[in-house]
Amino acid sequence: MATPSQITNPLLVGVAIRSQIEIDGKIPVDIPLEKEFAEGSDYTVTDHVNQLHAGTCKNPRTLQIVTSIVNHLHSVIRETKPSNEEWEEAIDFVTKAGKESQGKLNIIFLLGAVLGMNTLINDINHPKPPGCTSATESGPFYIDDVPEYPSGSSIIKADTKGERMFFFGTVKNTKGEGIRGVKVDVWQADGDGVYDVQYHEGTNDRGRIVAEATGDFCYRGVLPTAYHVPTLSVVKDLLATLGRHPNRSTHLHFTIVAPGYESLTTQIYPSHSPFLGTDAAFATKPSLVSDVVEVTDPRKWVEMGFKEGEVTNGRVWLWKYDFVLPTTAEVEALKKL
Amino acid sequence: MATPSQITNPLLVGVAIRSQIEIDGKIPVDIPLEKEFAEGSDYTVTDHVNQLHAGTCKNPRTLQIVTSIVNHLHSVIRETKPSNEEWEEAIDFVTKAGKESQGKLNIIFLLGAVLGMNTLINDINHPKPPGCTSATESGPFYIDDVPEYPSGSSIIKADTKGERMFFFGTVKNTKGEGIRGVKVDVWQADGDGVYDVQYHEGTNDRGRIVAEATGDFCYRGVLPTAYHVPTLSVVKDLLATLGRHPNRSTHLHFTIVAPGYESLTTQIYPSHSPFLGTDAAFATKPSLVSDVVEVTDPRKWVEMGFKEGEVTNGRVWLWKYDFVLPTTAEVEALKKL
Repeated sequence: MATPSQITNPLLVGVAIRSQIEIDGKIPVDIPLEKEFAEGSDYTVTDHVNQLHAGTCKNPRTLQIVTSIVNHLHSVIRETKPSNEEWEEAIDFVTKAGKESQGKLNIIFLLGAVLGMNTLINDINHPKPPGCTSATESGPFYIDDVPEYPSGSSIIKADTKGERMFFFGTVKNTKGEGIRGVKVDVWQADGDGVYDVQYHEGTNDRGRIVAEATGDFCYRGVLPTAYHVPTLSVVKDLLATLGRHPNRSTHLHFTIVAPGYESLTTQIYPSHSPFLGTDAAFATKPSLVSDVVEVTDPRKWVEMGFKEGEVTNGRVWLWKYDFVLPTTAEVEALKKL
Repeated sequence: MATPSQITNPLLVGVAIRSQIEIDGKIPVDIPLEKEFAEGSDYTVTDHVNQLHAGTCKNPRTLQIVTSIVNHLHSVIRETKPSNEEWEEAIDFVTKAGKESQGKLNIIFLLGAVLGMNTLINDINHPKPPGCTSATESGPFYIDDVPEYPSGSSIIKADTKGERMFFFGTVKNTKGEGIRGVKVDVWQADGDGVYDVQYHEGTNDRGRIVAEATGDFCYRGVLPTAYHVPTLSVVKDLLATLGRHPNRSTHLHFTIVAPGYESLTTQIYPSHSPFLGTDAAFATKPSLVSDVVEVTDPRKWVEMGFKEGEVTNGRVWLWKYDFVLPTTAEVEALKKL
């Protein structure tokens, strides 16, 4: 192990290191180099990196994360044995993803999404008792500051694109009882697969619905259609190389809040949507898919609250889905297991 | 599984997807969503991602690499359970590394180096029979177009900073015999830990030495000192968080070429160097470390070829190291194991 006098000796360390030591006055930590590290031996470079960090890193959480990253990235290298050219290609790929990220359109984040990592983080951070509705990511289009509507309201403007839809849901607990005091944020694309924020023409296709005391809520809107994730930069290249399309399944977004219950952010999918099995963000699960049915009887449209002449193509789409929320106590108990 | 008519139905897919289908005319691949994927079950999102890629990716090497990356990054998430804030921090970290990379100073590459990955790739790509000299990375300062010198030459200018050094090496095969036809590229920092390319004053401290028929070669230069890797961007933050210094051990670089033998790129280290155990790039191994001795007898200096008055501080540093190269046949045999 190098001594302080060795480390500060001008003959042993260059000008850059001497000035570094002069600035912060601290002698850099050194440890003995006792073992030859080599692949196939009982002490590899991975062991040496981890041994060093175990000695120098004071924050246990940082140490845990960095050790996990080192172990697994080293495993990728051992499994794939990248040539120098492949390694350079990988470096260039990540570099380009960083360089071309802009604000909310972060390519590194998107890469995580299209490789299933956001879904996994959601699953891990939101463990649920059996029977509860799965959480999915909220995506980039959520807005907190939205109008509040009583259940039964319309959340669309008269000229909103798409066939009319009536959504009806009940929010229940794990005993199957409707929950009191529920508020439901809903946001969705229109019949062209486009969100209000993408039109820049004010709030539309979204709102905060105040449910009945029974946990029931409903609203009038349009049937959304499927759209694709941004195909920017290396995301496009990666998906093409993998033979994958960039499309999401058709979906509605919900964030459901009720006192005493764990809030739920999720998406639900109509069974008629393409791409259910190949959702580019892996946010589609069978339990979140349900049938959406056509209602062709104009008397039913009036009961739902649609005005005369508002309904197009001779049908309204009726979408029903029940959400099951765990209590905060049920989730706490689960996290302690 | 969605049918082509479903996938091209305007009611099911939005404008962005319809225009995508119109451009390339290809119906996007869809697969059935048969299983609920959930943590703790026998079919996780990781399984679903891998199943999708196994079905869509036509290039076996791409599939191998992406599957390995997906498996191991998902394992990092399972082991560390990142909060949303930690995940965002990680995304920002990599994004910044990409954005602040410039040409040869690539921060993503540097991160790989300081986490031991370049050393690992070198080890894996250059398996060696027992007794052969280990390979290490060449680093950013190699130049191919350098002057060729007969063994015994000086590779420095008169005003080069640093105490004088005489390097003597023999290049041998695994039987211990000197090798014929050896050429040795050497490049190194000066006594301040600085390379010629960093001064922008022409070639210095480097050259291609033509060895004797015995495999012996020697040259006159200066004793290098230690310097640190570029502490740019998030590399500085990462090392600080880990309690690590950014310094490399003092070293000489060599690339040794001989007909019939596997070329060797490596670095060797003087035992007096600090940071042998904590080399920021993990390129230092005990087998590459040797004692460098002071020669204080002026008659020896003359034998080495130094001119009168050239030697400072009353000493020349004598550094001897023997390199052992495998034949290309020996390496091929090893790779087949």
